[in-house]
Amino acid sequence: MIIGTQNVRTVALMFIVLMYLLFGAAVFNALESKEEHNLREILQARISRILFKNETIHNEVLFTSLTTAIFDSRHFRSGTTKQWTFPGAFYFSTLVVTLIGYGHTTPKTMGGKIFCMVYTVAGVPLNLIMFQSVGERLNAIISFVLLRIKRLFGFRRHKVSGFELIAVELCMTTMLVLGGSLIFSRQEKWTYFEAIYYSLVTFWTIGFGDLVPLASLQRTGQSLYSHWGYFIFTISFILFGLALVASSLNLLVLRLAQFHSENGIGGISAFLG
Amino acid sequence: MIIGTQNVRTVALMFIVLMYLLFGAAVFNALESKEEHNLREILQARISRILFKNETIHNEVLFTSLTTAIFDSRHFRSGTTKQWTFPGAFYFSTLVVTLIGYGHTTPKTMGGKIFCMVYTVAGVPLNLIMFQSVGERLNAIISFVLLRIKRLFGFRRHKVSGFELIAVELCMTTMLVLGGSLIFSRQEKWTYFEAIYYSLVTFWTIGFGDLVPLASLQRTGQSLYSHWGYFIFTISFILFGLALVASSLNLLVLRLAQFHSENGIGGISAFLG
Ligand SMILES: [K+]
Ligand SMILES: [K+]
Repeated sequence: MIIGTQNVRTVALMFIVLMYLLFGAAVFNALESKEEHNLREILQARISRILFKNETIHNEVLFTSLTTAIFDSRHFRSGTTKQWTFPGAFYFSTLVVTLIGYGHTTPKTMGGKIFCMVYTVAGVPLNLIMFQSVGERLNAIISFVLLRIKRLFGFRRHKVSGFELIAVELCMTTMLVLGGSLIFSRQEKWTYFEAIYYSLVTFWTIGFGDLVPLASLQRTGQSLYSHWGYFIFTISFILFGLALVASSLNLLVLRLAQFHSENGIGGISAFLG
Repeated sequence: MIIGTQNVRTVALMFIVLMYLLFGAAVFNALESKEEHNLREILQARISRILFKNETIHNEVLFTSLTTAIFDSRHFRSGTTKQWTFPGAFYFSTLVVTLIGYGHTTPKTMGGKIFCMVYTVAGVPLNLIMFQSVGERLNAIISFVLLRIKRLFGFRRHKVSGFELIAVELCMTTMLVLGGSLIFSRQEKWTYFEAIYYSLVTFWTIGFGDLVPLASLQRTGQSLYSHWGYFIFTISFILFGLALVASSLNLLVLRLAQFHSENGIGGISAFLG
C-alpha cells in the first residue's frame, strides 16, 4: 500500500511541479535581473542628486537614519494616514477570508494579529464552502441558459458538456477583466495593461499587493465613505471574479483529479468531450 | 430550477459570509485604529526630530521629493539590492503557483508581468492537483499508520474515522508551526509570536508579506546561495505546511460541502462520527 501506483503518480506530480518551478525561476531571472540592475542605478543617481543639492545631508549615517525612521518601521506599507476605518476594515476582512492578502493593510497590535489568526479558522472554510456553492449554482444557471439557447436553435445534442461550460465561464471572466480594467485604469491611474495584470493576480488570489485599488485613497487620507460607489464596485469585482474562477476550477481541477485517479490520463478527454 | 432549495442555501451562505465580514470589520477596526493613531504620532515625532537636527531640510517640498525618490517608486518594497537571482526567482515562482504571493518581489518589466500571467495558467492548476494528490496520499499513509497502532493496542473499532485523521493532521500542523517558528524567530529576529503569526498567514496562503523569511537576506544583498540550508528549509516548511492544510481542508471542506448538499446539516455529524 505504501509503495503503489498512487504513490508513484504523486511523486511524479511533485517532480513535474519542481521542474515547472525551475523553468519559471530561469525565465523570471532572465527577464527581471537586468531591469532590476537598471532601476537600481537610476535610483542611486536620483538619491545622489538630492544629496548633492543638500550638502548637510551628505552624511551617510544621517541619511540612513532618515530613511529608516520613515519607512523601515513595520508600517511603511500603509503610509502615515488612517487605514483602519470601518470600510477599510471590511476590505481587510474580505482580503483575509478570500486568501488574497494584498498586505497594504495588516494588523499591527498583538490583539489584531491574534484575532486575525482566530478569524481565519471559521472564515476561510466558510468562504470556501460559499464559493463552492456559488460556483456550483453558477454552473447550473449557465447550463440552464445554454440548454435553452441550444433548444431555441434546434441543436441535436441537447446535453451541455463541461467543455462548453468552461468556455462560457472563460468568456465571462475575460469580459469582467477587460471591463473592470477600464474602470481601474481610470480610477487608479494605472495603465490598461497594469489593470489587467492586477485583475489576474487578484482572481488567482495571489494578491502581490504591488497594485491595490482603494489603497491610494487610503494613503492620501480620503474617506472610503465618500467613494462608496467605487468601494462597492471594487469588492464586487473581486468577489464576482473569484466566483467565476472558483466555478471553472471546480469543474476543471476537481473533476480532472477525480477522473485522473479513477480512469488514468484518458479521463481528461472523457470529461471534456 | 432557478429558485430552488439549492439557490436558497447559496443565498443563505452568502448572507452568512457577509455578516461574518461585517463582524470582522467591526473587531479589526476596534482593535487597530487606536494603535494606528499612536504609531502615526510617533512616526511624525521621529521625522520632526530628524528635520530639526538638519535645518536645511526644513523645506517640506525637498523632504517629500527625497522620500518619494527613494521609496514611493514602484520598487520600494524590494529595497535597492539584488532580488532576482536564480534562487530568488525560484522562491518567487513557488510563491506564485502556491498563490501565497508575499509581494516582496514582483515582476517590474512588461515581459515579466506577461510571463507571470501565462505562468499561472498551467502552474496553479498543476500545483492544486499536486497538493490534492499529496494530501490524499498523506491521508492514506496516516490512516495506515493509525490502523496499525489501533491493532497493536487491540482496539475493537478498527476503522479510522475522518475525525481522527483531522485530529492527527491538526497535531502535525501545530508541531510544524511551533517548531518552524523557533527557527524563523532566531534567523529573522522575529518574536516567537510573530513567527507563529507568519506561519499561519502563510499556511492559509494569505501571504500578507509583512513578515517574509529570506527577504532581509535579499534586502541586505546577501546571496541566497550562501544560506542554502535556510533557503531549502524555508521552501520545504512552506510546501509541507501547505500539504498538511490541503489534506485537512480536502477532508473537512469538500466532504462537508458534499455531505451538506446530499444530507443537509445532519451530514456534518455523520461525517465526523
Ligand atoms: K495570497
Ligand atoms: K498575498
